[in-house]
Amino acid sequence: MVIGPVDTSNTPFAKLRTLPLDEVSLGEGFWYRRQVVNRQASLYHGYEHLERAGNFHNLKLTTGRVGGGYRGMVFADSDVYKWLEAASYELAARPDSDLRRMAEYAIDLVEAAQGNDGYVNSYWQVVQPGRRWEDLTHGHEMYCAGHLIQAAVAYDRATGNARLLSVARRFADYIHLVFGPDKRTGTPGHPEIEMALVELYRHTAERRYMELAGCLVDRRGDGSLGPGRFGSEYFQDHVAVREASTMAGHVVRQLYLTAGVADLYLETGEQALYDALMRQWSDMSEHHLFVTGGVGSLHRGEAFGEPYVLPNESCYCETCAQIASVMWNWRMLLATGEAKFADLMELTLYNGFLSGVSLDGRGFFYVNPLQSTGVDDNSGSTRSTRPEWFDCACCPPNVMRLIGSLGHYLATRDTQGLQVHQYAPATVGFEAHSGQRALLRIETEYPWQGTVRITIDETGDDAWQLSLRVPGWAEGASIHVNGQPWNAMPVPGTYVTVNRTWRVGDTVKLDLPLASTLVQGHPRIESVRGCVAIQRGPIVYCLEQADQAPSVDVMGVEIELTGQMRDSWQPDLLDGVISVQADGYAVESRPWQGRLYRPAEKDSGIVPQPISLNAVPYYAWANRGPNAMRVWTPATRTSQIT
Amino acid sequence: MVIGPVDTSNTPFAKLRTLPLDEVSLGEGFWYRRQVVNRQASLYHGYEHLERAGNFHNLKLTTGRVGGGYRGMVFADSDVYKWLEAASYELAARPDSDLRRMAEYAIDLVEAAQGNDGYVNSYWQVVQPGRRWEDLTHGHEMYCAGHLIQAAVAYDRATGNARLLSVARRFADYIHLVFGPDKRTGTPGHPEIEMALVELYRHTAERRYMELAGCLVDRRGDGSLGPGRFGSEYFQDHVAVREASTMAGHVVRQLYLTAGVADLYLETGEQALYDALMRQWSDMSEHHLFVTGGVGSLHRGEAFGEPYVLPNESCYCETCAQIASVMWNWRMLLATGEAKFADLMELTLYNGFLSGVSLDGRGFFYVNPLQSTGVDDNSGSTRSTRPEWFDCACCPPNVMRLIGSLGHYLATRDTQGLQVHQYAPATVGFEAHSGQRALLRIETEYPWQGTVRITIDETGDDAWQLSLRVPGWAEGASIHVNGQPWNAMPVPGTYVTVNRTWRVGDTVKLDLPLASTLVQGHPRIESVRGCVAIQRGPIVYCLEQADQAPSVDVMGVEIELTGQMRDSWQPDLLDGVISVQADGYAVESRPWQGRLYRPAEKDSGIVPQPISLNAVPYYAWANRGPNAMRVWTPATRTSQIT
Repeated sequence: MVIGPVDTSNTPFAKLRTLPLDEVSLGEGFWYRRQVVNRQASLYHGYEHLERAGNFHNLKLTTGRVGGGYRGMVFADSDVYKWLEAASYELAARPDSDLRRMAEYAIDLVEAAQGNDGYVNSYWQVVQPGRRWEDLTHGHEMYCAGHLIQAAVAYDRATGNARLLSVARRFADYIHLVFGPDKRTGTPGHPEIEMALVELYRHTAERRYMELAGCLVDRRGDGSLGPGRFGSEYFQDHVAVREASTMAGHVVRQLYLTAGVADLYLETGEQALYDALMRQWSDMSEHHLFVTGGVGSLHRGEAFGEPYVLPNESCYCETCAQIASVMWNWRMLLATGEAKFADLMELTLYNGFLSGVSLDGRGFFYVNPLQSTGVDDNSGSTRSTRPEWFDCACCPPNVMRLIGSLGHYLATRDTQGLQVHQYAPATVGFEAHSGQRALLRIETEYPWQGTVRITIDETGDDAWQLSLRVPGWAEGASIHVNGQPWNAMPVPGTYVTVNRTWRVGDTVKLDLPLASTLVQGHPRIESVRGCVAIQRGPIVYCLEQADQAPSVDVMGVEIELTGQMRDSWQPDLLDGVISVQADGYAVESRPWQGRLYRPAEKDSGIVPQPISLNAVPYYAWANRGPNAMRVWTPATRTSQIT
Repeated sequence: MVIGPVDTSNTPFAKLRTLPLDEVSLGEGFWYRRQVVNRQASLYHGYEHLERAGNFHNLKLTTGRVGGGYRGMVFADSDVYKWLEAASYELAARPDSDLRRMAEYAIDLVEAAQGNDGYVNSYWQVVQPGRRWEDLTHGHEMYCAGHLIQAAVAYDRATGNARLLSVARRFADYIHLVFGPDKRTGTPGHPEIEMALVELYRHTAERRYMELAGCLVDRRGDGSLGPGRFGSEYFQDHVAVREASTMAGHVVRQLYLTAGVADLYLETGEQALYDALMRQWSDMSEHHLFVTGGVGSLHRGEAFGEPYVLPNESCYCETCAQIASVMWNWRMLLATGEAKFADLMELTLYNGFLSGVSLDGRGFFYVNPLQSTGVDDNSGSTRSTRPEWFDCACCPPNVMRLIGSLGHYLATRDTQGLQVHQYAPATVGFEAHSGQRALLRIETEYPWQGTVRITIDETGDDAWQLSLRVPGWAEGASIHVNGQPWNAMPVPGTYVTVNRTWRVGDTVKLDLPLASTLVQGHPRIESVRGCVAIQRGPIVYCLEQADQAPSVDVMGVEIELTGQMRDSWQPDLLDGVISVQADGYAVESRPWQGRLYRPAEKDSGIVPQPISLNAVPYYAWANRGPNAMRVWTPATRTSQIT
């Protein structure tokens, strides 16, 4: 049994099999430190806020034994479930009696809230009794059920305690009774339950859960969700799942749906689902991706928006969308074994996702812009400081469950051997195809240094393959086995495979050249035209006002395209980062005085001032108070300065 | 009585009084030629399409004397009314028995369709009998009524025939009965009737029409229109009119509303309305304006979108929005006498508006992008050729009514004298404050040449002021009276005033320097960063593929920032235009192969090829088949080319 979000041990169309969480143990390093903060700060912080915001109280209201009114969003229960799922992954990694007690308390509430028929949803039980399932478009009942199921599976896998699983199964059975084959046609306004049901099937071997997921997916595309064409696209109900060729509508909804559809494909092997997913993935990666891995251009409708329209300052890039993207890409990777999905997971994890949480684990971004004036917008939608919590608190516990389960995404196995997708200090155990057990030790300072050393600590006598992802950015990578150059050249964007009969003590060294690089965008991305971003390995950098000389306005600078870049390890900066220095210029401009257009300055007469620009990782911005920030900066060449 | 859309003869808070259309006679020139095409082609073309699309048929259905079903949009009647209004302005200018007969035919249908209680709306009468006013959000009943009223006032003013006016008054009286003070609270999902009702008041002196407009405006802001917050913003129902500080939601709705609110201010002088309008105007001009004068960034929701987000290729810039902007700015000009409103009208008329109609008057853009790949998008939303008509045909007859009434916007009077706002060959008569009549002859090749000659052909003995707008772009303008420099320097963005006792034969010559200029955008407009646009006087230019050398891809060029620009009159190009030649470069780029980001080329090794770029007025693009086009082009300096 796999402890972790996805178990493809017996999944027929999975090219790759997931590893149990207890087979992957992260060691001291980049992600380990994020997990420590998650366990020591975020989970307690989250529990407190669930208490304070009324989420637990809402569940208590269902029993009629406490007074007061329902509080928060219609889907408030899902925050509890996501928190429980996050707690489960931490409990799987190490016992923690406090955390266990908190989890049991929450489970008590959920258990008590469940009705005799299996239904549980505090909003509909308390606020709209007798009206369940009347508003599939906005009701979020199946959405909450999906999160309940995912939490229950995770808790059972982590602790062996099936109490929450029983609750979840009763609810799933009841939903099957109402919405199963030949029953009421209907599908939820917010996808999420689809992947949960497939995982419940994987965990229980009860086929009707997957069958129900299939029904819900099959029913999309008739426009019954939401009013009008605009509305149905928002809910991914404007086109049948198998006909889809673009990513459309509300980003999180779309990505949870594609993740669930990928789960269905993994179990059924249906070509039409695979083809649609591939078309949609191409659409996303070719038209809708920010350089941070973020997706979601529009605040209005929280939508993908038009192709190539990727505004830096006004983009949405909701943290939950980045999490959903990781979940979908993981399933695509399991289905195909293709490195591009793991590449995008890496890009998203280190940048668009990680910017969603503060370094202390107690602040969260809902929206992740790529540029900020450093002034918090009154509308509350664009911020340059991370709030502690939200009225709509979907993101914080979502961050917690992803960070808690990061070990799950490091490696997989197949009949040939082991694949390492993400690099972090870790020990990884797995069963090779012969049934013989192997154990590897991974040592690396990744993402700050590009050397990954792998030592075989345990192995059988039969040959097996070790496949290592060579990231798409890693031009010039090299690989050594036991100190000797290996005969396969690592090709960026693929896996390099070492196939041999291993001996204990064998070492593999992968060197990924990490150079600070200036990146440019496709000419049709109007918002980055003439600009460059700094990237070093998987880390995208930004210029934050706090790191510049006092006289420099970060919004009035240019980067020298032909300059040298210097990087240096800063142990005391932002929990320890490599910062990058680049040559640039301070450019002055006449004030604009409210105008939007004016005659161009052919020669301003002001000589641009050579300056040094200091860049820090994008994920770490906004940890030092309100602060202007930019990822993309206009580029110039020395010879261009007249 | 003023023949024209707005009559401020007796409007207490109008700084400027509108002139009767028959006092302003356009002579051969830029706008005159558009009016000829409007009269000879567009109006007949429109009538045919109204017939073909079923708009007349829908009206016939109300009498039950023809068979068949209702066709088209719920607001199909409004297309008929807009066409009637357009026909009225042409009939005011010159008799035309064919056009008169067509108009009378349409009026017959409207008259026959009207119920005994005054209600007339073919959709609700035919398709939803007995359900009128049940869906104020989407029903468009008051919207159609507004257009009926505007058409009726125009027809009565133009022809002296009050038949349609009687229909309109009966309907307005009935609406007052249902929605007047102390009656049913409700306001329409699509503003438009507000300005119509105020004009009906101006035309009939019947105060209750204005009172009703006030009720409808006062009722906004309670969120009763549309579902949820997103919905109510779309309908401008998320904030009370007097509290508004931004332009928000559906652009045409917002602009028709502000136009109506401006009309209310003009009649009531209420400061809170004025203050809100001024805040909203600043928001629009400082955050939402394209260089063409266009507004509307988002296809989805046809909305303004975020501040500074002004994408070139994916913008909306609906033709109707530009028309609505002209209507609103005209009322703001009448209220304030400030040149900035006339400046924006000019910019919008020559560019963002005029691109909405083909040179032959038989093709129309709904969406006016500032960049196009030249390939018609399958979605139908972004096009590079102008369709003959639309299922939602709001724009074509709206274009016709604005072109037909252009003379209305040229000049105004006040107690001191005459103000000339827009320049075109014309004769303008008016009554000076003393009651004495004056007649001016304006001669100009504007917008191709910047000299405006005004001759006094008739005047009384008392002194009066002649005020001439000096456009904001006209640095270095000069003015002569009877060949002598006048003692007031023309300041761009203001009016220069000549106050004297005029004699017949006196001449005033205003010289507005028309130089081809490269324009840059505010740094926060990400989509134009590093780019320039060519502007010459009020005309914004574009690079169209058809005008470049065959080897040049218009999407792969740069403009030389320090180069010379040459312009030349091209009598046979695009109905006669001044084209502009600029120095530039053809830049080659490695293919992108579906990627969105890649390491920047520090030195591509390919020397940019010096080329000559040929620009034509933006309004005239897409008259030669599908064709790539761009308004904004990356700028470079010779010395920047390494």
